[in-house]
Amino acid sequence: MARTLMKPDDVKGAWAIIPTPAKDDASDWRATKTVDLDETARVVNGLIDAGINGILSMGTLGEAATMTHDEKLDFIKALVDAAAGRVPIFVGTTCLNTRDTIALTRQALDIGADGTMLGVPMWCAPSVDVAVQFYKDLAEAVPEMNIAIYANPEAFKFDFPRSFWAQVAEIPQVVTAKYIGVAHLLPDLAAIRGRIKLLPIDFDYYGAARMDESIDAFWSSGAVCDPLVTTTLRDLVSQARATGDWSAARAFMGRLGPTAAPLFPNGSFKEFSTYNIALEKARMNAGGWMNAGPVRPPYHLCPEPYLEGARLSGRMWAELGKALAAEK
Amino acid sequence: MARTLMKPDDVKGAWAIIPTPAKDDASDWRATKTVDLDETARVVNGLIDAGINGILSMGTLGEAATMTHDEKLDFIKALVDAAAGRVPIFVGTTCLNTRDTIALTRQALDIGADGTMLGVPMWCAPSVDVAVQFYKDLAEAVPEMNIAIYANPEAFKFDFPRSFWAQVAEIPQVVTAKYIGVAHLLPDLAAIRGRIKLLPIDFDYYGAARMDESIDAFWSSGAVCDPLVTTTLRDLVSQARATGDWSAARAFMGRLGPTAAPLFPNGSFKEFSTYNIALEKARMNAGGWMNAGPVRPPYHLCPEPYLEGARLSGRMWAELGKALAAEK
Amino acid sequence: MARTLMKPDDVKGAWAIIPTPAKDDASDWRATKTVDLDETARVVNGLIDAGINGILSMGTLGEAATMTHDEKLDFIKALVDAAAGRVPIFVGTTCLNTRDTIALTRQALDIGADGTMLGVPMWCAPSVDVAVQFYKDLAEAVPEMNIAIYANPEAFKFDFPRSFWAQVAEIPQVVTAKYIGVAHLLPDLAAIRGRIKLLPIDFDYYGAARMDESIDAFWSSGAVCDPLVTTTLRDLVSQARATGDWSAARAFMGRLGPTAAPLFPNGSFKEFSTYNIALEKARMNAGGWMNAGPVRPPYHLCPEPYLEGARLSGRMWAELGKALAAEK
Amino acid sequence: MARTLMKPDDVKGAWAIIPTPAKDDASDWRATKTVDLDETARVVNGLIDAGINGILSMGTLGEAATMTHDEKLDFIKALVDAAAGRVPIFVGTTCLNTRDTIALTRQALDIGADGTMLGVPMWCAPSVDVAVQFYKDLAEAVPEMNIAIYANPEAFKFDFPRSFWAQVAEIPQVVTAKYIGVAHLLPDLAAIRGRIKLLPIDFDYYGAARMDESIDAFWSSGAVCDPLVTTTLRDLVSQARATGDWSAARAFMGRLGPTAAPLFPNGSFKEFSTYNIALEKARMNAGGWMNAGPVRPPYHLCPEPYLEGARLSGRMWAELGKALAAEK
Repeated sequence: MARTLMKPDDVKGAWAIIPTPAKDDASDWRATKTVDLDETARVVNGLIDAGINGILSMGTLGEAATMTHDEKLDFIKALVDAAAGRVPIFVGTTCLNTRDTIALTRQALDIGADGTMLGVPMWCAPSVDVAVQFYKDLAEAVPEMNIAIYANPEAFKFDFPRSFWAQVAEIPQVVTAKYIGVAHLLPDLAAIRGRIKLLPIDFDYYGAARMDESIDAFWSSGAVCDPLVTTTLRDLVSQARATGDWSAARAFMGRLGPTAAPLFPNGSFKEFSTYNIALEKARMNAGGWMNAGPVRPPYHLCPEPYLEGARLSGRMWAELGKALAAEK
Repeated sequence: MARTLMKPDDVKGAWAIIPTPAKDDASDWRATKTVDLDETARVVNGLIDAGINGILSMGTLGEAATMTHDEKLDFIKALVDAAAGRVPIFVGTTCLNTRDTIALTRQALDIGADGTMLGVPMWCAPSVDVAVQFYKDLAEAVPEMNIAIYANPEAFKFDFPRSFWAQVAEIPQVVTAKYIGVAHLLPDLAAIRGRIKLLPIDFDYYGAARMDESIDAFWSSGAVCDPLVTTTLRDLVSQARATGDWSAARAFMGRLGPTAAPLFPNGSFKEFSTYNIALEKARMNAGGWMNAGPVRPPYHLCPEPYLEGARLSGRMWAELGKALAAEK
Repeated sequence: MARTLMKPDDVKGAWAIIPTPAKDDASDWRATKTVDLDETARVVNGLIDAGINGILSMGTLGEAATMTHDEKLDFIKALVDAAAGRVPIFVGTTCLNTRDTIALTRQALDIGADGTMLGVPMWCAPSVDVAVQFYKDLAEAVPEMNIAIYANPEAFKFDFPRSFWAQVAEIPQVVTAKYIGVAHLLPDLAAIRGRIKLLPIDFDYYGAARMDESIDAFWSSGAVCDPLVTTTLRDLVSQARATGDWSAARAFMGRLGPTAAPLFPNGSFKEFSTYNIALEKARMNAGGWMNAGPVRPPYHLCPEPYLEGARLSGRMWAELGKALAAEK
Repeated sequence: MARTLMKPDDVKGAWAIIPTPAKDDASDWRATKTVDLDETARVVNGLIDAGINGILSMGTLGEAATMTHDEKLDFIKALVDAAAGRVPIFVGTTCLNTRDTIALTRQALDIGADGTMLGVPMWCAPSVDVAVQFYKDLAEAVPEMNIAIYANPEAFKFDFPRSFWAQVAEIPQVVTAKYIGVAHLLPDLAAIRGRIKLLPIDFDYYGAARMDESIDAFWSSGAVCDPLVTTTLRDLVSQARATGDWSAARAFMGRLGPTAAPLFPNGSFKEFSTYNIALEKARMNAGGWMNAGPVRPPYHLCPEPYLEGARLSGRMWAELGKALAAEK
């Protein structure tokens, strides 16, 4: 192993999850080379300038499913070049099977990505054994690549149970996880025994951080609506932890929390998952901080009322960002 | 359009669904070129000699998810060469998005495949609009390729509702469908208005054929356990329809039906879907008529009691085949 | 056992499922004695005069859940008195546990009901063992009472699997079943070995009857929108079976089938089940043949667009009935 | 209103959820008067002597579904008499409809119960409107009765969404809730605006208490395995809150948490819910602190391996209790 792996404690603070910026014609199946590489570089620089601690990419909203292989390589290179080692870059390399995933992960490593945000092949629902072995095989095949478990139950037909966490915690390459919810946070933390840094979503970060001291990092797809909101959340929780006074962090949640509601159609995560990409990109475009562009096929169709909810969520986030800037 | 499309009525009789035969090391992620091309040719010839009317391949059990791109091209070529135009060959070209699917379908067309057995990208659950547009885009992009809708709700996170059928029936390329269940058969037939030939599974063929005269074809993954069972079912239903006397067909169902039960763990289709490939290949290998070989990663792990049920199902099918041969 | 039990073959033809007619104030929790006994008698007489072969009552839409104990006894007596032995009367006696169900069933028997349409206690989802034992205990406790299994998976949190049918078929009191769907009809028939007469819903009767000769009876909640539609379906299937010519029955399904669609919100049985009572009573009231009255609490609230769909379904049924009368 | 209603802040500390102790023949449907009233009194006194702050009864494991009406009245009287006003007694009065529930709640009030632990009628899945109106009607009909919302999604086919909490928070009688999980705790707390005291389960109490200062009470079905475990949890969280040092409470969770795992078959809450009563009573009987007795029909059947897991859970709890006593 030529490269030293990260450790769970190397993952700290606010990690932005970013989309793959798309050119104007990207919803047309005839389009090729749809990645807006200039916007990609601009976004990476902007996030780093804003103080974001790490970048996750090519998840569901990052359109890992809908980019061509060549587009993926171009995008990874643009990310790595723009970051230039200033913050860790994790890229999604989940394919429909073990061998394709290994091949793509090796290419990502060669380009210079720090890690892979890795879900499980989803044609068949994976059993626990299948899921664990998939991560083991990937780690064995590409031992220098850091792994962030991408724990999305709707995308991967898998509920990521405790027995899964207990087993993948044994894999040195698995340093972190894009985690979801807090319902099982404490028992899952018990299962991983400090070997994986779990990242809750920004909306759950306050609660998760209060539940357990080990929670000192989170993921935020809102970061690209305005990173100041994300870094403010990070800093308020850090201050609260240092001082023992959580009142300011709690008050901030009262401002941040309501921006989540209009993003989820009828309050349903399952319904959100059906339109995940279109909703998140609509939200980001409405935020105004970046240009995420259109959605690649086949997921470019979404009911207009759902999109309007997502746009409202983006505008609310952006307005909170402006208010925070003004309060500084 | 240089090639004439098939019509729904060109799809008749017993269609075999076949696995992608695998070499002995195919469960190892290090393996390459895992397709057993000799066995592929032998199976195609054997099915055609046995009187099978068409071949479907590269579905779930056909490991469309776990073959590499190069393996897919090799396998398609082997199928097309072996069939040599004697029966239609449909190959699965479902990828994670529209553009990759179009590219692979074009390659399959160039190699000489007659059609694609096509599911829907499954990273996100598709809405009806997304699913319909996916088939429209594919048909527009590759207009000479016949399409069999691959209606598997567990694989594709989609329940294929009536409004879907009504819309894809407008696409000339969609000539047939690997259909599942009979619960909605009559209303779905009403929705498609004769424009798509629906293929029920062998175990449902008797009931479906009695429900509606338009049902005169079906799919059978058991065909590769012994095709004589499959063709006998086809012929008994044809005779019943001609004579109006269904007693022999019904009596045959009393022999065929029980072979299905041990294939489904705890009687659950959802549980079966988790282990689909391993169960079907275990069944086929136990049938003894062909060598399906091991399962490609990540789906090669399956609880032994489930496998034993599948093997029992395969042996029961094979024994029925032997009894039928003896009765001739 | 003083009374002779029915046999499966005693259940034939068109069985109406009826609501419990409610007085105008029945949605108010302060109301008592809410059953409209006059309308009850009128409906029973009307159905019998129209040639209906049997009556099922006090299921979900029959508000078994929301009637008080005294109302149940009054209603059962009204049904039995009106029928006066001309057709079998089955009444729902499902309670939250075994002992209460036995007590109510004994009272129904004493009043003169022919059978109980019996679901499973639904506070906890029943295992197969629990469900089977429940029917066994009931049969042992009230051996003179005929039992119709009430196979509603949404109400009773139970999917009525094959192993259930195989076991309850051993109970002599179980003579029939309000069955749902045709997806598992043939294997379920194999499991019951002729010992239970399965009743599909009217909308499935044509298909079910074609699938298996043993299907010669069905249930119809539409019967109270106009029983002529129900009896016409029955007679056309009988004629088809006698002559071997199914064309008239099939053509009739083309007229009957479309009346079902607007009854199911978004085509969903699960959503229908949430508003089952309100939707069915709205449909029946719109049919104009009877006055089902309002819905008892807590199920009296339902979105207006759903109700409008149900009313449309009722009007379509009634119009079909008028057309049939004119065609006579 | 003659009696003053409780306020949310009157609900504090450790609330025990108790079974309805059953005599030896209680699994037989012929049995009557199955409540062991002596053991009931002994348990209430024991819990109060141990410092438990309130008692909840006649929920799912308390067999509200399977007791006869007379048994319910006898049991309520025994509870009220034994408690003699020393701690609040809440009794379950959920029936299959609004009117029966009102009648039983009035009787419970007359006997002297302080409140009702109230779920929603579950024959049909309730919509939000139906569920809210049900609680409103109950409060209007029995205005002196305190209400604890019984938020069990499996029993009541209802997921208790935020819009539900926002609306029932307007009902003065609703003072507390047997709450489940922490996934939605913070947004639900925002919705109820301090008007309902939410009680998490003992296993979630530490995490919930850290997430939000308003959480200062919880429910515990393990209390009847040994109340010292329950009161120790309560006291350690109180001390942590007072001192700001959570290390002792956290260390205690490391001892308590593992006792939960064997109670849930295959880690599934849904599977647990199917066998809820049998599992909880097996656990309690194995705990040795009380005699919960057998399970009333129809829920008395449960796979032996599941029961063995439950017993292990009970023994682990009891052993923790003994260790705590020794450490004092």
